[in-house]
Amino acid sequence: MRILGIDPALRITGYGIIESRDDRISHIASGTITTKSSLEIQERLDMLYNGVMAVISQFRPDVMAIEKVFVHNSHTTTAFLLGQARGTIILAAAHNSLPVIEYAATQVKKAVTGRGHATKQQIQRMVLSILRMHGTPRHLDITDALALALTHRFHNSNIALAQALGHTR
Amino acid sequence: MRILGIDPALRITGYGIIESRDDRISHIASGTITTKSSLEIQERLDMLYNGVMAVISQFRPDVMAIEKVFVHNSHTTTAFLLGQARGTIILAAAHNSLPVIEYAATQVKKAVTGRGHATKQQIQRMVLSILRMHGTPRHLDITDALALALTHRFHNSNIALAQALGHTR
Repeated sequence: MRILGIDPALRITGYGIIESRDDRISHIASGTITTKSSLEIQERLDMLYNGVMAVISQFRPDVMAIEKVFVHNSHTTTAFLLGQARGTIILAAAHNSLPVIEYAATQVKKAVTGRGHATKQQIQRMVLSILRMHGTPRHLDITDALALALTHRFHNSNIALAQALGHTR
Repeated sequence: MRILGIDPALRITGYGIIESRDDRISHIASGTITTKSSLEIQERLDMLYNGVMAVISQFRPDVMAIEKVFVHNSHTTTAFLLGQARGTIILAAAHNSLPVIEYAATQVKKAVTGRGHATKQQIQRMVLSILRMHGTPRHLDITDALALALTHRFHNSNIALAQALGHTR
């Protein structure tokens, strides 16, 4: 199964694709889709849509895992911009008949580190370790996206990810 | 010139198409695109996208006029949902190479009634009168959408709309 994790935003959207076969999990691809804030909203959403369509078309994932957003603590303008970006990404999934599964940030933290209150850096370290990736991606958005994909892989598993890998952090 | 006005929302999006030839302005079509709140967000955005695509394909407008949203006073969750809907609609315009022009609510009020502080009901009366429409549309979203289309028609005109029609309200 190929899982596409997406960390949505209007300026920098992180994506990460992992493949899960039996007990093996591999990193297939990851990166960012960026849109310049100087462009019109229409152009930006179109670039974001095309970027997600290209990733789906190139790597053919079976499912999209995206963060479930709780915007209660956000600024309304931020929530509005994020909403436009997220709508565009979900639409790209719909146009590829890709199921979209939402995971809350606490579910991601729990799945990847075994704890509901991990920092972004702790998540990043675990993602890099689980996927045996060397070097640190330029953006935390990328490891966040990979963490979402891993969450989908481990969400329905009885084996806690951190335990399975012998990590106790 | 055919102008498509859109009043975006996730549950009920109003649309209105007017045609402007020389000094004549006619009502071509108007209605709503609705999505059930019981459906998944992915299905709702897809329905909204398809609805806007169908309206564009059927009536071939030259431009889309959409409300410029100031969300400062909204609840963040409302802003987030509206953002997802609006992103979807703008993307449908982009996929038809339709220019999108944004108008603030005060611009709409000013263009249609000559005043920046008109009520929704006053806007509705003016829209129905200008377009010589009989009966009242079921939803204010429809007259709001038509008001946006009219705003685009009159925005670059030197003739104030209300004056041109002899209305002093």
